[in-house]
Amino acid sequence: MTAKRIDLNCDVGESFGVWTLGSDEALMPYLTSASIACGWHGGDPRVMRRTVRLAKTHGVRIGAHPGFPDLLGFGRRPMQLSPEEVRDSLVYQIGALWAFVKAEGMRLQHVKPHGALYHMAANDRLLSEAVAGAIADVDPALILIGPSGSELVKAGLRAGLRAAQEGFGDRAYNEDRSLVPRSAPGALLTDSDTVADQVLLMVEGKVRAITGRLIPMTVDTVCLHGDTPGAPAVAKRLRERMTAAGVMAVPLEESVAGQVS
Amino acid sequence: MTAKRIDLNCDVGESFGVWTLGSDEALMPYLTSASIACGWHGGDPRVMRRTVRLAKTHGVRIGAHPGFPDLLGFGRRPMQLSPEEVRDSLVYQIGALWAFVKAEGMRLQHVKPHGALYHMAANDRLLSEAVAGAIADVDPALILIGPSGSELVKAGLRAGLRAAQEGFGDRAYNEDRSLVPRSAPGALLTDSDTVADQVLLMVEGKVRAITGRLIPMTVDTVCLHGDTPGAPAVAKRLRERMTAAGVMAVPLEESVAGQVS
Amino acid sequence: MTAKRIDLNCDVGESFGVWTLGSDEALMPYLTSASIACGWHGGDPRVMRRTVRLAKTHGVRIGAHPGFPDLLGFGRRPMQLSPEEVRDSLVYQIGALWAFVKAEGMRLQHVKPHGALYHMAANDRLLSEAVAGAIADVDPALILIGPSGSELVKAGLRAGLRAAQEGFGDRAYNEDRSLVPRSAPGALLTDSDTVADQVLLMVEGKVRAITGRLIPMTVDTVCLHGDTPGAPAVAKRLRERMTAAGVMAVPLEESVAGQVS
Amino acid sequence: MTAKRIDLNCDVGESFGVWTLGSDEALMPYLTSASIACGWHGGDPRVMRRTVRLAKTHGVRIGAHPGFPDLLGFGRRPMQLSPEEVRDSLVYQIGALWAFVKAEGMRLQHVKPHGALYHMAANDRLLSEAVAGAIADVDPALILIGPSGSELVKAGLRAGLRAAQEGFGDRAYNEDRSLVPRSAPGALLTDSDTVADQVLLMVEGKVRAITGRLIPMTVDTVCLHGDTPGAPAVAKRLRERMTAAGVMAVPLEESVAGQVS
Repeated sequence: MTAKRIDLNCDVGESFGVWTLGSDEALMPYLTSASIACGWHGGDPRVMRRTVRLAKTHGVRIGAHPGFPDLLGFGRRPMQLSPEEVRDSLVYQIGALWAFVKAEGMRLQHVKPHGALYHMAANDRLLSEAVAGAIADVDPALILIGPSGSELVKAGLRAGLRAAQEGFGDRAYNEDRSLVPRSAPGALLTDSDTVADQVLLMVEGKVRAITGRLIPMTVDTVCLHGDTPGAPAVAKRLRERMTAAGVMAVPLEESVAGQVS
Repeated sequence: MTAKRIDLNCDVGESFGVWTLGSDEALMPYLTSASIACGWHGGDPRVMRRTVRLAKTHGVRIGAHPGFPDLLGFGRRPMQLSPEEVRDSLVYQIGALWAFVKAEGMRLQHVKPHGALYHMAANDRLLSEAVAGAIADVDPALILIGPSGSELVKAGLRAGLRAAQEGFGDRAYNEDRSLVPRSAPGALLTDSDTVADQVLLMVEGKVRAITGRLIPMTVDTVCLHGDTPGAPAVAKRLRERMTAAGVMAVPLEESVAGQVS
Repeated sequence: MTAKRIDLNCDVGESFGVWTLGSDEALMPYLTSASIACGWHGGDPRVMRRTVRLAKTHGVRIGAHPGFPDLLGFGRRPMQLSPEEVRDSLVYQIGALWAFVKAEGMRLQHVKPHGALYHMAANDRLLSEAVAGAIADVDPALILIGPSGSELVKAGLRAGLRAAQEGFGDRAYNEDRSLVPRSAPGALLTDSDTVADQVLLMVEGKVRAITGRLIPMTVDTVCLHGDTPGAPAVAKRLRERMTAAGVMAVPLEESVAGQVS
Repeated sequence: MTAKRIDLNCDVGESFGVWTLGSDEALMPYLTSASIACGWHGGDPRVMRRTVRLAKTHGVRIGAHPGFPDLLGFGRRPMQLSPEEVRDSLVYQIGALWAFVKAEGMRLQHVKPHGALYHMAANDRLLSEAVAGAIADVDPALILIGPSGSELVKAGLRAGLRAAQEGFGDRAYNEDRSLVPRSAPGALLTDSDTVADQVLLMVEGKVRAITGRLIPMTVDTVCLHGDTPGAPAVAKRLRERMTAAGVMAVPLEESVAGQVS
């Protein structure tokens, strides 16, 4: 019997020019995968270089985190792009990050759409196929990350990609596995042990909905939000609890492989 | 004895969104290499995809044509970026174009800096090394195009790259091999046969300066400007004159190789 | 009894940097009002200056034509901005154009939202109020242009602004006064006399729907699209037909005033 | 005899989208004038609105702080724009900020170029005239702020504007009244009382060069840099020292008037 294992990912590299965001340096030691912004919603060439190097230093696997062309809105505002525009926008951004990964002697592991694009594609077959198509265009060996059970995951599999199902460690879920909206009470989990409890359940293929009911949910990778002030402490505690529970933190390539076998 | 040969390149893919520029479709049949804008001074993801496909259709080899982050100024306004900023800006743009080339099953052949960056780097050792470093970062097999005899060419060779020396078919030269400024009388060659005369001299390793004097100049690739209205007709006549003179138009990879042996 | 009269407006100043769009110089002689892009979906500071001067030369009144922050998509892609974001985005753009109008000794007459913002706001009370609020913020004497009968017009009136009802001379209408989608057959009117017929009906407060039925529609200003190749010829013919029919072309300030009395 | 007095200004409103910069709220109580970024090097419409309101709350006069079109470089990278491009770029930005000031029932007091534009224009007659021309275009009652004794100040006076001479409270000066480069030892004054000493000398029309020699320098307004961590504490101490020395902090309009009489 193999040990239980999960990938821990975080969105990083979202500073821009003189402006900094997130606590990438403090979080990186606790991650196994990092999704790096590609300059459209955040990030810039200098930041991308630095963030790739930071991940390399910590042995963290790297993914591209492309978003809408909306720096002012941080890629969080829904935009109606055609599937062709989405596909080519992603080819562009994935290629840009790929070049830094190549420059630093690393290999690109995955692609995870950002913000409004992630959430819109999760429920939209055409958008999801555009995302999957872009990834297949650049490198069919790349893993597509989408919400557990989403159209993104399905489109990835249809396109012949490996698709990783993502769960959020610090967000409450509804019974239908959708996220409780940020504005609702209890939507955000901020207590370290509450987050750890949720992640350990996800490792078992379950999540406790905000109603209290346990529902099944397949999770290959757990996302921690890096822009909350206490994120590094939460991540540290999570790793301690995982160790205590005999759960290994492994890069996405291994956690996805684990799900398949 | 091998036949005389030269590469013909043009800057293409410089449309943006609803705005079109150049006559890429009309010019492409006469080219052997195309330098495609990467979205910073011109071009966008849809335009990049279309232009890569257009080059593929015509069997034209593809290069990246990265520029300063100045869409409003079309990359023609000098900007003072640090060498690190230049290097990472180019890694970003080369990677973005590489992804479209990969998506269309092609291979990237070369990199040619655009506009103010091209001209500033030509005379600046540090900038030139930043450009060469970016290319080496992404793929040391890429060819760097710079003005004949420039710092760019020297930096490329020092970095272990193949470096191609460029001549302009439609611009007048001073005796020191610098270009006659666009504002000076006689700076632009618009007559097809005058252009063809100049190119055929370049194939022989010479250029006639505006003073009338013949000076030596090594040229691996001739650039035609695509944004002048009569460019396709000039290109057509040039190819006829080359054929008549027994000069082959070959992709840069072959013309550079020819110079080395 | 006063003479019949109508304002003729066109969206102009939509070139950007090296890229040109539209035929502003050829159209301007036939217009009474011009809506000038403000740099977000098209236009830039040099273009804004030139276009304001061009309108001044022809005695054409000037309005601001603000859009979404989407140069790549020309402001035609729907974006979900909050009402506060829309309001402040418009204050910014109106102010920018106001400064050029002031610099040239002119006065700003109106504001007309562009593209996706225009169409989204037309049916959205909150967005319309954001648009009207922005105009009231900058100058309550400015006229808001919106589609005839739209939420934009209603929001303008509620905010104490003068609101002008717009009709499209070269687009077919449904019976509910909505535009026939561009993709549908017969959506675009390209024949000069067909356009003139439609405009002369609008002057009478009517439009013939694509079904053939005459429906009432109040129109203070008729928009001609300047980006279609034959637009200047259509405009010229329209002015001839208007003269023949005894209909005066007057600036929006006068045509709106006419509707009120 | 009138009391001694000086204006204290700071560059504010330089956050952008999700990214924050500076400590505007903590500094504002100590300022008499605020120079607000206009969206090109920093700032955005929402930030501009908030910052105008913040200044209003504290009774601080407002100026426009326009910069180069270089968000990524925060307007600190020299760019070669033509004088016409500079002039129209500033008309655009001043107008944009003017609109928010108008919306909040305030009046615009001054214009201070930002970053590389400020430093380039200080020594360049043509650029300075472009800056002054832009201000005169929008409103000749606006005050132009430039370095004490600079081309900017001279160009402002030639254009018929009021021109304010600026001194930096927290930067060391050479004997020729140029700033000691940031990279040199002793360039930055970080001790509160050292800053206060320098400002109180400036009120007397003098500055002590880094060599120790006292040199004459006319200063109408003192700039404090808001992006250094201890800036609010330095500003607080400065105000205490000014009060103790009988020096009043007054808005630029009054300190400039004071110099003239």
